[in-house]
Amino acid sequence: MAQTLQLLVPIAGIVAILFALYLARDVLSRDKGPQAMQDVGDIIREGADAFVKRQYTTIAVLAVVAAVVIGIVIALVENEAVADVPKLAGAPIGALTAFAFLVGAACSMASGIIGMTISVRSNVRTAAAARRSLVEAVQVAMRGGAVSGFLVVALSLLGVWGIFTLYQALFSDIGIEQAPFLIVGFGFGASFVALFAQLGGGIYTKAADVGSDLVGKVEKGIPEDDPRNAGVIADLVGDNVGDCAGRGADLFESTAAENIGAMILGVAVYKIASDAGWANPEAWIFFPLVVRAFGLLATIVAVAFFIRGKEDEDPMNILNRGYWVTAGLSVVGLGFTTYVMMQTGTATGANGMPAWLWFFFAGIVGLLTSVAFVYITQFYTAGGFRPVREIAEASKTGPATNIISGTAVGYETTAVTAITIGIALIASHWLGEQAGLVNTKTGANVGGIFGTAVATMGMLMTTAYILAMDTFGPITDNAGGVAEFSRAEAGAREITDRLDAVGNTTKALTKGYAIASASLAAFLLFSAYIDKVNLILGNQIEAGKQGVKLLTSVNLANVNVFVAALIAAMLVYFFSSLAIRAVGTTAQAIIVEVRRQFREMPGIMDYTQKPDYARVVDITTRAALREMVAPGIVAVAAPIIVGLLLGYEAVAGFLMVGTIAGVLLATVLNNGGGAWDNAKKYIESGNLKDENGNVLGKGSDAHAAAVVGDTVGDPFKDTAGPSLHVLVKLIATITLVLAPLFIR
Amino acid sequence: MAQTLQLLVPIAGIVAILFALYLARDVLSRDKGPQAMQDVGDIIREGADAFVKRQYTTIAVLAVVAAVVIGIVIALVENEAVADVPKLAGAPIGALTAFAFLVGAACSMASGIIGMTISVRSNVRTAAAARRSLVEAVQVAMRGGAVSGFLVVALSLLGVWGIFTLYQALFSDIGIEQAPFLIVGFGFGASFVALFAQLGGGIYTKAADVGSDLVGKVEKGIPEDDPRNAGVIADLVGDNVGDCAGRGADLFESTAAENIGAMILGVAVYKIASDAGWANPEAWIFFPLVVRAFGLLATIVAVAFFIRGKEDEDPMNILNRGYWVTAGLSVVGLGFTTYVMMQTGTATGANGMPAWLWFFFAGIVGLLTSVAFVYITQFYTAGGFRPVREIAEASKTGPATNIISGTAVGYETTAVTAITIGIALIASHWLGEQAGLVNTKTGANVGGIFGTAVATMGMLMTTAYILAMDTFGPITDNAGGVAEFSRAEAGAREITDRLDAVGNTTKALTKGYAIASASLAAFLLFSAYIDKVNLILGNQIEAGKQGVKLLTSVNLANVNVFVAALIAAMLVYFFSSLAIRAVGTTAQAIIVEVRRQFREMPGIMDYTQKPDYARVVDITTRAALREMVAPGIVAVAAPIIVGLLLGYEAVAGFLMVGTIAGVLLATVLNNGGGAWDNAKKYIESGNLKDENGNVLGKGSDAHAAAVVGDTVGDPFKDTAGPSLHVLVKLIATITLVLAPLFIR
Repeated sequence: MAQTLQLLVPIAGIVAILFALYLARDVLSRDKGPQAMQDVGDIIREGADAFVKRQYTTIAVLAVVAAVVIGIVIALVENEAVADVPKLAGAPIGALTAFAFLVGAACSMASGIIGMTISVRSNVRTAAAARRSLVEAVQVAMRGGAVSGFLVVALSLLGVWGIFTLYQALFSDIGIEQAPFLIVGFGFGASFVALFAQLGGGIYTKAADVGSDLVGKVEKGIPEDDPRNAGVIADLVGDNVGDCAGRGADLFESTAAENIGAMILGVAVYKIASDAGWANPEAWIFFPLVVRAFGLLATIVAVAFFIRGKEDEDPMNILNRGYWVTAGLSVVGLGFTTYVMMQTGTATGANGMPAWLWFFFAGIVGLLTSVAFVYITQFYTAGGFRPVREIAEASKTGPATNIISGTAVGYETTAVTAITIGIALIASHWLGEQAGLVNTKTGANVGGIFGTAVATMGMLMTTAYILAMDTFGPITDNAGGVAEFSRAEAGAREITDRLDAVGNTTKALTKGYAIASASLAAFLLFSAYIDKVNLILGNQIEAGKQGVKLLTSVNLANVNVFVAALIAAMLVYFFSSLAIRAVGTTAQAIIVEVRRQFREMPGIMDYTQKPDYARVVDITTRAALREMVAPGIVAVAAPIIVGLLLGYEAVAGFLMVGTIAGVLLATVLNNGGGAWDNAKKYIESGNLKDENGNVLGKGSDAHAAAVVGDTVGDPFKDTAGPSLHVLVKLIATITLVLAPLFIR
Repeated sequence: MAQTLQLLVPIAGIVAILFALYLARDVLSRDKGPQAMQDVGDIIREGADAFVKRQYTTIAVLAVVAAVVIGIVIALVENEAVADVPKLAGAPIGALTAFAFLVGAACSMASGIIGMTISVRSNVRTAAAARRSLVEAVQVAMRGGAVSGFLVVALSLLGVWGIFTLYQALFSDIGIEQAPFLIVGFGFGASFVALFAQLGGGIYTKAADVGSDLVGKVEKGIPEDDPRNAGVIADLVGDNVGDCAGRGADLFESTAAENIGAMILGVAVYKIASDAGWANPEAWIFFPLVVRAFGLLATIVAVAFFIRGKEDEDPMNILNRGYWVTAGLSVVGLGFTTYVMMQTGTATGANGMPAWLWFFFAGIVGLLTSVAFVYITQFYTAGGFRPVREIAEASKTGPATNIISGTAVGYETTAVTAITIGIALIASHWLGEQAGLVNTKTGANVGGIFGTAVATMGMLMTTAYILAMDTFGPITDNAGGVAEFSRAEAGAREITDRLDAVGNTTKALTKGYAIASASLAAFLLFSAYIDKVNLILGNQIEAGKQGVKLLTSVNLANVNVFVAALIAAMLVYFFSSLAIRAVGTTAQAIIVEVRRQFREMPGIMDYTQKPDYARVVDITTRAALREMVAPGIVAVAAPIIVGLLLGYEAVAGFLMVGTIAGVLLATVLNNGGGAWDNAKKYIESGNLKDENGNVLGKGSDAHAAAVVGDTVGDPFKDTAGPSLHVLVKLIATITLVLAPLFIR
């Protein structure tokens, strides 16, 4: 039974891809609206395609170079480290790692490119659908978004499963307990692509947004998305390349890295299971993949059958309904999988309860944590609650108090975030410990850490759905732009405005979800790193190398570890500084060009001349690609330099403290930015009043102050924050792959 | 010889206090200028005295309550933990800790109150001296500031030495190796007072600054420090209570905590020295105090003889000259002290070099680090360099880009800060290891960590001088205000303006210095915490308690430690959020009152009515004292809760990661704020030009944008940042004192 269940992984992966293709066909077959809409849609599509082509060409070149370097370095170092251990020396480790890296990079690129191709075609169709029906518009946008969601999760699942299976088939001397270590290259490849995709896309989108707004809205006083603004198309393109392609790459990486990390932790349980003679010990290694497969199936059901509702319903309700269906079915799948795969013979855990039940509870903790984050993010960034109201009130005394207040809110959000993560970790660790998975040789209880792995898996079961909701955001944002730009009828614009507001919320939710998963994953990947280091050290001990001891603890009181931790905490600030500055530099280039067009083409303002949109798109593309290099290199180089200078124990400290610092700073940036954004919207909706009860709406000084806050928040929440998610996971995969380099 | 040298501690302390009294008398005997100046001076003095009286009354009550609680808790818990160990059980540990706490609190309060009393009397005398001579004005301000500097360092030295000597004299069963642990209460008392002094003062000063500027400068368009602004006196009072009393308490705490931490580390060396039969083993424990005594003497020479120069000289040169004299004499004192006190008989360190020489080098590393920080801070916050220029340029496109750019600069400054600290730690640790202080029983080389202690001591030798320069800042700032307010002659105002600019630089330097010392100290206090925990665990083992093991490493892979680290990193954001919000709330109260006065007393604008300054001072006082409570309680409670819930190893992780996160966030806030401030000044000095070469000065849109950045930076750099310094050291002393509570 447990073995049959393993087959579900390729089956669910392929079904999900087929379903994504069906959704793509369905979306593409829909009405594209009147010619004016189609024209705008075409311009956006061309701009996005051009950027993505150039961006992914650059990334592909970088990835191939990196793969070659990694392959050679690993071959040199790891063969030396494990030279006398026949089990691993039989396989060409360097080549296998490099190949896995390339496959990971390719899958990530493929899901990004295809997903975006669909999303830039869904926008105009959503706008067209909005001319007829709200529900139809929701369906088009959600189905377009789901293409990304399914591709990301399915390709990552199939990639990990495929390489795992392939390597075991090709090299008979690779045991199942070594195989997970050989596929970490896949995760590294995915992180590598994600880093540049998120940085390049994030810089593009916010530079275009800030740059065109500063000239159009602030200097010329014309509305957002006005066709007279030469930067407007770049702005619309940016929504796709940043929010959509960037976040897809981010979650592709999460999915891959966390699957691999959980499989590595499964190895420890596998050893106990084989020693004890339980049936199907390898089920403990495959478990993470099977759980994710059930998550995919649950999402297919939700997207296919539950995205429907009434015309006068709040569109958020429709999306929420689908989410709860996904989560509910996931619980069932989780229970079934743990029951089938976590059989421990006659052994039971604490209170005589079976091990699988304890792990099922741990998985529920993970699911609940993701739900908690959905509500936490809403409280801090949605208009009705205290934080956003506070920022709006502070806007009355000008931009300075708006910024001070927003900063305080951003900082404040770390409290409930950290406490929730802390509770989830301790609870799932405790539940795992109760399962009673004790290694009889060493006396170590490996259930605790595996419990946190199961919680992570539980949380990630709904990834495809969350990602679909996330991509819903840029599609509806674009649909609104298309409607405005093509001067569509008022009814359609009203619907796209409502969807856009919902899209802002779903985008914020995804960030909360991404943060939560990154933090749980951190602890998991950290443990995987320690396991990997000990695998190498163990080989050295077996080979008779003198003075080698296993790494049983990471000692913060060691000066090298402390300094590495300090450098890691610094890295997240420094990296964010580079990312934020890159937005500023790129925006400056756009501002100069848009101003030039207004000055040299005086007919633009009275619609007698058409601005040169393509030129702005081109300038933004070049600047964003140039600016993504520096932060990217810093992120890749820092852990390697620390490892080479300070050693493998210091790297563990680097990893742990870097994760903590990165997760918290990302929380500050994402939530602060989201709150500023919605404080502006709160004022625009007429909710702010002066002491005499008069509404302070659009055009008031308070609104101008709130616009400043919104602009400040843009690079925080859409460039630096999301890039930090990637950074956190990148340092984990990079050190996992290069661990042999840090061991002398 | 080594024993004679120990006598230098009380002698230098008393000499420094006498010298401070001489300086105070000298300053007070000077000319107070015309009646108009004296009137303003009187109002400021009354406001400051009123605030300090109420603030310190509140703090005193809190401190007495805390002392009683601490005494009782420690008595209950520690006696239980060490019940069967006669050596310590003979002394009433709870009472001794509580007494030390009260003495520490009292000394800190005394140095704060006396220092401020002099500084609010120096301002008017500096303004009066500026009517005659630049050099005389520098002398008055520097001497007034030096009163604080000497009192802080001397009282902390005498306090630690006095309690240490007293406890040994009173209880013959307290060995010299236990005594340092009993005086940690002194450090805790100092931290406790510092926390509230810095928070209350920081909130007061920035709320008054922001509040009166927003109404006066922005709404009414009248200059800063204009007598028509009802908030102006509160602003001038704020400079004294925040910058002067707050920073004094901050550095008093540093001095005390670091002395005690270094003495605790000296205990480990003492044991080696006694086992090996070296002469004067207790010299290793007294060493930190003797080095500091030499630092005091060096500063006396510099202040007495080297604060002089030419009328047309840059005043910064005069102050720098004094600093270099202090640093140079400190090197001599350091060399002499290490040579006399660090004698190891015939044993030598690496390369056959004597131990004292290696430690002398480690001390030099500390001195060089403090010099490096002086230059780093200048690069990032002074007008001539790239960072400030970048912010000024960004102001051309409005407040949003100004804020984005300033944030990027603030984040960027963490890089060089962390790398410098890392190099200092690793270098001094390495140098200390070379000294060859190996415990023959355990094989542990205790020299490394003692090397970092010596580096910290080296860095802190110049504290009194640095603090004098720091207090120079608020005195000259106030002198400028007094000159403006009393409409003094242009020549005097020109001189006070020059001094004010220098004061801004020295204030920024002190913050860099405080950060550097906090980070080095963190590693030291962290080690002291481990020593203390092991003292208790060792007692339990000696008493035959089962299952107890010494704490040899702090394992980040332990889930409790990881969660504690996460909470610690969160705490620094949450605490800053509360502090920043407190400024906003207090400023709001001031804005309402100043607006009311303008509205209800129409004669103010044409000078026919006098605003009610006292009322604003009173409102600010009450609001600031109310608002300091929440962040203060959070800071005190968090480490205790973590310790009780997660245990003593988790506390170690909390301490370490909290320090790292706190130091880096303080760097971001201090330097970002400083850079914004100086970007505004850069524009006001006419250095910013548009593309056609026209100056964009005061009154331009760029200047308005820079004012927004400056206002945002105010609570960052003068409330939250400095309060974080205190927080970092508070969590160290609090956990050091309460360690027995966390051991089950």
